[in-house]
Amino acid sequence: MRLVTVGSVAFDAIETPFGKTDKIVGGAGTFITLASSIFVKDQGIISVVGEDFPEQTMKEMRKRGINLDGLQIKKGEKTFFWSGKYHDDMNSRETKVTELNVLEHFDPVIPQKYWDCEYLMLGNLSPVVQRTVIERLPKRPKLIAMDTMNFWMDVAWDELMKTIALVDVLIINDDEARQLTKEYTLLKAASRIKAMGPKFIIIKKGEHGALLFYGGRVFVAPAFPLEEVFDPTGAGDTFAGGFVGYLAKTDDLSFENMKRAVIVGSAIASFSVEKFGTQRLMETSIEDVEQRIEELNTITDFEINNL
Amino acid sequence: MRLVTVGSVAFDAIETPFGKTDKIVGGAGTFITLASSIFVKDQGIISVVGEDFPEQTMKEMRKRGINLDGLQIKKGEKTFFWSGKYHDDMNSRETKVTELNVLEHFDPVIPQKYWDCEYLMLGNLSPVVQRTVIERLPKRPKLIAMDTMNFWMDVAWDELMKTIALVDVLIINDDEARQLTKEYTLLKAASRIKAMGPKFIIIKKGEHGALLFYGGRVFVAPAFPLEEVFDPTGAGDTFAGGFVGYLAKTDDLSFENMKRAVIVGSAIASFSVEKFGTQRLMETSIEDVEQRIEELNTITDFEINNL
Repeated sequence: MRLVTVGSVAFDAIETPFGKTDKIVGGAGTFITLASSIFVKDQGIISVVGEDFPEQTMKEMRKRGINLDGLQIKKGEKTFFWSGKYHDDMNSRETKVTELNVLEHFDPVIPQKYWDCEYLMLGNLSPVVQRTVIERLPKRPKLIAMDTMNFWMDVAWDELMKTIALVDVLIINDDEARQLTKEYTLLKAASRIKAMGPKFIIIKKGEHGALLFYGGRVFVAPAFPLEEVFDPTGAGDTFAGGFVGYLAKTDDLSFENMKRAVIVGSAIASFSVEKFGTQRLMETSIEDVEQRIEELNTITDFEINNL
Repeated sequence: MRLVTVGSVAFDAIETPFGKTDKIVGGAGTFITLASSIFVKDQGIISVVGEDFPEQTMKEMRKRGINLDGLQIKKGEKTFFWSGKYHDDMNSRETKVTELNVLEHFDPVIPQKYWDCEYLMLGNLSPVVQRTVIERLPKRPKLIAMDTMNFWMDVAWDELMKTIALVDVLIINDDEARQLTKEYTLLKAASRIKAMGPKFIIIKKGEHGALLFYGGRVFVAPAFPLEEVFDPTGAGDTFAGGFVGYLAKTDDLSFENMKRAVIVGSAIASFSVEKFGTQRLMETSIEDVEQRIEELNTITDFEINNL
């Protein structure tokens, strides 16, 4: 299988200054696979839901080529639920409810079909679960990318370090990079993370774009400036999904292609925030992404010959 | 005269996590003119200092072609003094001392030599003083650019609006743009500012670069990623000085050239923060700026043909 993603498939209830939802489908694994499905048809997901999870969503995912053999459905149990409220500036949010439910004792089972997976995306989850998946695969994938968050730095530092040591690409946001390294400048933070194991480091900066580090090289990727940011939930996961989906499709791990993958991630993430939940992402075509990349190219282009 | 700048010439005492200075030379007017002097030899400054201001600094400024006929020296009075401390993250700071001194009753006098000025840069100062300079010039310059800060939004809103209505370019940072417009996304903020008068809007985002807006067009400029940010004081003024200096030199107000000017500003500002006060800026040559622009070009370059 070309790409396998591990990550939560969940319910979210979101409140932003622009509106409020009941329980809608969310979760890192959902956003990642929906984004990567724009590029890869041969992919699977390892996750767990309760019997309350809508068959309709699973149907939609399958229609996009996402194999669900690795998605456990726990009879008589409930799907992971998160509820949060974004503040007026949309840059910060508070968690109102977290119900782990089926995620509390999640033991990832890897279908045999996934054993030869070439690209592995570890969505934000307990570093123990992330590592278990790596260990249970009979052979190491060509590329392992990983997302994480400050929560795991607070409660599972040692486990997190062990997992980070095993991956090729770490994708985190700027605050998390600072917390992880105690360094202020992102250049220094990236150097420290490199020493922890990953060869490629991607630091997401939300509306400010993203940075890619590899060896001594840096790539500064823009974000698409939006008139409206409706719901930032899942933007980071969508970025990761676009990134790894493009890599899995092109199967080229050069720095030049990694740069393209970051641009693809940035472009797709800019769609995701335009509506609540996965709605906008579900409607996004490869042509939409191409057009946004063209716009990104235009708005960042400059030429100076000499002063 | 090609370029005239209005702005404070001052003393700063700065504390950062990396060190601490006694009174050193600072001020928006100082940073702006030192930066623009890399491009323009025919320029003057309108400001005021006390008799405690060092002759040595004025000599350095004159050596760089900065005409000081508009710099009033008040006998028996003291130069404006600001003292502040940056927090560990270097993104926020607290003001410890503000002594207005000579700035309290600053009445800008415009030497006849400056009357035909083509480019006017209004550094961050009371909007009344900024407007007085525009009104006292016998003819309107070809381009007026203006910086301001949240303080004037809090204490002099109506005066600020009157001054903003008169300028071609407003240069402010992202938080200030949000405060000025009550809009969260910078695209919307820029639209509102356009309605206030300025045709060009530049929103500075510190380590995240800057945005330039003109008509329906946007330019996303990167910041140079630095290993060390030693002292951010004056970075915004240095940006403005590089921007307006490059424009004044090239005398081309097309959007394409404005983009170049923003890149020049971004490149020069990245030097300014590498040492305390104006020290690094004083050592920066046009070749240094050229080299950094080349690096900016490299680290932002990407090419995707199709997905």
